[in-house]
Amino acid sequence: MKNFALIGSAGYIAPRHLKAIKDTGNHLVASVDPSDSVGVVDKFYPEAKFFTEIERFDRFLEKLRYSDNDQKADYISICSPNYLHDAHVRLALRVRAHAICEKPLTISPWNLEALEALEQEYGKRVYTILQLRLLESLKKIHLENFHRKDVAEVDLSYITRRGPWYHTSWKGQETKSGGIAMNIGIHFFDILLWIFGPCTESQVHYRDSERMAGMLRLERANVRWFLSIAGKDLPETCVNQGKSAFRSLKVDGEEIEFSTGFEDLHTLSYREILEGRGFGLSEAKPAIDLVHRINRSETTSGKQNLHPNLVQV
Amino acid sequence: MKNFALIGSAGYIAPRHLKAIKDTGNHLVASVDPSDSVGVVDKFYPEAKFFTEIERFDRFLEKLRYSDNDQKADYISICSPNYLHDAHVRLALRVRAHAICEKPLTISPWNLEALEALEQEYGKRVYTILQLRLLESLKKIHLENFHRKDVAEVDLSYITRRGPWYHTSWKGQETKSGGIAMNIGIHFFDILLWIFGPCTESQVHYRDSERMAGMLRLERANVRWFLSIAGKDLPETCVNQGKSAFRSLKVDGEEIEFSTGFEDLHTLSYREILEGRGFGLSEAKPAIDLVHRINRSETTSGKQNLHPNLVQV
Amino acid sequence: MKNFALIGSAGYIAPRHLKAIKDTGNHLVASVDPSDSVGVVDKFYPEAKFFTEIERFDRFLEKLRYSDNDQKADYISICSPNYLHDAHVRLALRVRAHAICEKPLTISPWNLEALEALEQEYGKRVYTILQLRLLESLKKIHLENFHRKDVAEVDLSYITRRGPWYHTSWKGQETKSGGIAMNIGIHFFDILLWIFGPCTESQVHYRDSERMAGMLRLERANVRWFLSIAGKDLPETCVNQGKSAFRSLKVDGEEIEFSTGFEDLHTLSYREILEGRGFGLSEAKPAIDLVHRINRSETTSGKQNLHPNLVQV
Amino acid sequence: MKNFALIGSAGYIAPRHLKAIKDTGNHLVASVDPSDSVGVVDKFYPEAKFFTEIERFDRFLEKLRYSDNDQKADYISICSPNYLHDAHVRLALRVRAHAICEKPLTISPWNLEALEALEQEYGKRVYTILQLRLLESLKKIHLENFHRKDVAEVDLSYITRRGPWYHTSWKGQETKSGGIAMNIGIHFFDILLWIFGPCTESQVHYRDSERMAGMLRLERANVRWFLSIAGKDLPETCVNQGKSAFRSLKVDGEEIEFSTGFEDLHTLSYREILEGRGFGLSEAKPAIDLVHRINRSETTSGKQNLHPNLVQV
Repeated sequence: MKNFALIGSAGYIAPRHLKAIKDTGNHLVASVDPSDSVGVVDKFYPEAKFFTEIERFDRFLEKLRYSDNDQKADYISICSPNYLHDAHVRLALRVRAHAICEKPLTISPWNLEALEALEQEYGKRVYTILQLRLLESLKKIHLENFHRKDVAEVDLSYITRRGPWYHTSWKGQETKSGGIAMNIGIHFFDILLWIFGPCTESQVHYRDSERMAGMLRLERANVRWFLSIAGKDLPETCVNQGKSAFRSLKVDGEEIEFSTGFEDLHTLSYREILEGRGFGLSEAKPAIDLVHRINRSETTSGKQNLHPNLVQV
Repeated sequence: MKNFALIGSAGYIAPRHLKAIKDTGNHLVASVDPSDSVGVVDKFYPEAKFFTEIERFDRFLEKLRYSDNDQKADYISICSPNYLHDAHVRLALRVRAHAICEKPLTISPWNLEALEALEQEYGKRVYTILQLRLLESLKKIHLENFHRKDVAEVDLSYITRRGPWYHTSWKGQETKSGGIAMNIGIHFFDILLWIFGPCTESQVHYRDSERMAGMLRLERANVRWFLSIAGKDLPETCVNQGKSAFRSLKVDGEEIEFSTGFEDLHTLSYREILEGRGFGLSEAKPAIDLVHRINRSETTSGKQNLHPNLVQV
Repeated sequence: MKNFALIGSAGYIAPRHLKAIKDTGNHLVASVDPSDSVGVVDKFYPEAKFFTEIERFDRFLEKLRYSDNDQKADYISICSPNYLHDAHVRLALRVRAHAICEKPLTISPWNLEALEALEQEYGKRVYTILQLRLLESLKKIHLENFHRKDVAEVDLSYITRRGPWYHTSWKGQETKSGGIAMNIGIHFFDILLWIFGPCTESQVHYRDSERMAGMLRLERANVRWFLSIAGKDLPETCVNQGKSAFRSLKVDGEEIEFSTGFEDLHTLSYREILEGRGFGLSEAKPAIDLVHRINRSETTSGKQNLHPNLVQV
Repeated sequence: MKNFALIGSAGYIAPRHLKAIKDTGNHLVASVDPSDSVGVVDKFYPEAKFFTEIERFDRFLEKLRYSDNDQKADYISICSPNYLHDAHVRLALRVRAHAICEKPLTISPWNLEALEALEQEYGKRVYTILQLRLLESLKKIHLENFHRKDVAEVDLSYITRRGPWYHTSWKGQETKSGGIAMNIGIHFFDILLWIFGPCTESQVHYRDSERMAGMLRLERANVRWFLSIAGKDLPETCVNQGKSAFRSLKVDGEEIEFSTGFEDLHTLSYREILEGRGFGLSEAKPAIDLVHRINRSETTSGKQNLHPNLVQV
């Protein structure tokens, strides 16, 4: 049994990490969040310590490090706002724990490189959650396309409704979340690179506060992509079914079904990590590099290769 | 259809208020919380505005007040920390909306009195959530005991496990929550007074950071009460069933069953309020007065009338 | 003797308000600031209450309002971040106190208009600090130019060094401070309008995160203006004297000396207000309207009428 | 020239550290404070970076550590609230900088011991500010009493007025400041131990939220001590002179004058540290141990050896 501590226990994604720790038979010693609305922890670990200040959480872990008892933290789960991820990974390594960090590991590629040096220095590992790579349907696509010789035509849409709160929160500030391409899109860019190989060209065709769209030339695919948090972009069928998210991946005109099997991907990710097959810095890097490049790009007014959704915007 | 705005949308109890607003066919125009982790609002009202600062929320409501449009707030739902309840009720009245406030309306009786004057001044009402009074099982007990001539012997236990986070949060600070008797106990003191009449004597037998116990002489009952947030006080049967809360009310040795029907009490409370049968300042007052008296009491070392649970502590 | 309460006691400008309250022989009952670093208050009013939450401050003032004692607040001094000014003015009016608010009264003209309605509703006044209008040297210029028939040629420069912290603070966020033209420039735009009459044309020639420059056609002057917080824009003579601010106002080529007499302008402003000659909403409006217009303007690439400093940028 | 970074730049004591860095000819690269009211830094280091989040400050220092440039931080000055001191010392050591920490280094002795292990681990030193030991008048007393064979009779009073804000701030919370004996008294307990030797007995005679008093038996003195932040405890002569603090140290009935020479003690402390004569963990320990013991003591009702001021309380 391993000991975990968790950063960001009042947040939206924390329950999945708590469940993953529980499901894999491990233990939570402490958590931290500036917000004290963390009753959810009780459901999983009613004995876990809690702190509202990162300094006190760190002190507690340091004491465990120096003590001989069996509460020493082996892993730190990180569910804080994106721009603090690398700082919290550093905290984990310093107390000599492995880090399991939500996506994106960092917003800026150079902060990712700094973490590589720290992995060496402290002798602990940094893992990230790339849960879509664990989805059976996408694993299959990955295998089918990994050795193809021709270039696929791919359309990707991800529309996930967010209300006005999104823009008020850290998620709406590009310096804190990395923007829509980073916060909403990173998983999709990651699987595209993983399935179709490295990027040779990238165009951004559209961006506003709720949407981004563009084109990628990957080794084995031309991709038109469209990301949106605007509820009005949801297809009518989706709205009628009371759904607030729509995912579509078309490869050579054929829709890839990957809407099921999402429930336990955090638990599965944890299992992989604990068994030595977790995704680390090198796996995280290509998508972070790509999104960083996308965020830095000018929007081109070219009208070729526009994503079909874009026409309606 | 009425317009609502909500204070405390990132908190634990907010979803029940959101659901009640939805279930009663009404509309949410805006919410506020210092924490921006409020994605839950999208599930109910994906168009609602959101603010992290009370001043900006208030400005927004003021503008609606002066505008002619149909978004003017009719009701403000208040789910903030206890010590801010009366301040937020004042905010509601000032923007000329009725207030629907979580329990306890105030920690100090004198702040309750100040609200009475404001109800007059602004011509709007202040409602509170006393949901246990709406439980069919307790309504029955109320009716059965309201006219009894003799004095019942009553034992009340409420044990609801809270982890270490409770003490770190505002709930663990007596000046912010009113302590265990106020934060955990107020509903129970309210129904005891409602069922058995006013209090003529109160003793406190025990208090620590996780428990309180005492005795009340009410008009129609002698009550021994025990409140606890310590997991280890839960009965073994409860723990074995994976439950984290235990409620027991015995009247003349007979256990009153009231563990079911809790699900929709907030919706029911809203329905009562909207139909003119809500509980207001006068209904809230007796229990707040009593708990305030309990909090101010010395702990007596007397060994009579001790609650049976207390012997085991 | 009048009673004051103050919002923003941990801030940079608070000591001048505290001194003004003291110098005019009045009393401070309470102050509020989210930061608790307010030891400076002791120097002036060691008995004043202090709060870190606006709700508790407001509750305290409400209680005084309802009490009969002689501590009832007559005036609220407001030194909070710009974007909260109008919210805090509203707080003042609601507790039936006059407001004395730092510049700019509001960032957006429509929020200023909302305050006019509230002045009526609550029967209390809103004052602002336009201290440059009280400077003897500028009063003289005002009188000399008020009735002139021709059009003066005016150059205005205000360079006041701010370090990197400025951009991290609320002052660096345009939605919170109104940007450089509002935060640094409002006083200068106010005196220009006051001296030379209303604006008929405005051009913005340059803007970056540290500077703005442009041209105004006023009734009685053509003005080239330059505002900067970049230390490297300071004239060498200024730097050599260890000064961090440079002000220059040239009317028809003649330098107007107005670098002295700044010390007690807050006290003087308070004295004017207390004697019924304070500046109110109508005096604040023209400069806020103008800066709002400047902030909304496109930067024109025209090369005419450029401020001489701009050539060096 | 050495590079410094500073934690707590918006606080009361920061300007003395900034001045000390400047006076000793050194450089400030960055500072951090949750409050953004840090304009004071411009007066000393207008180029210094600023952060409101400790994680971002830490990231910045880490990057400097890995870079080759000459901005690498050599020293971190720590002026944060007492309960965070040791966490911030840890931050300093981890980025491989020496720490210069305000008093008290820690509130709890065991946290001090944890720092000793970290000094070893990271090979950097922890210094504290014990400025009274640098006062010429007290150095003289130290030398005169260090070898005395008999036992002196000593009375110590320190009364320093603090308004109601003190209790609202972190200073008023014992878990954050260590209480009056720690926050106000630590310097005095330090010099008493330094002059008169180790403590063999300690009694606490009085404590309320504004005062503490007691008796110490040291190797070479019996000490009656009195600490107060209540303005009404100030001697009338003091009040008449407009002073808000009163210090009195009587040795065998003779008043020791030590009210002058306080101005530049931070600069002097920095000079000592930079020249290898700074006070470290071992010098800080005795007073922290003693105050911790005082804070844990029961108040004795004994009427012997009461401090004369105590009689009037």
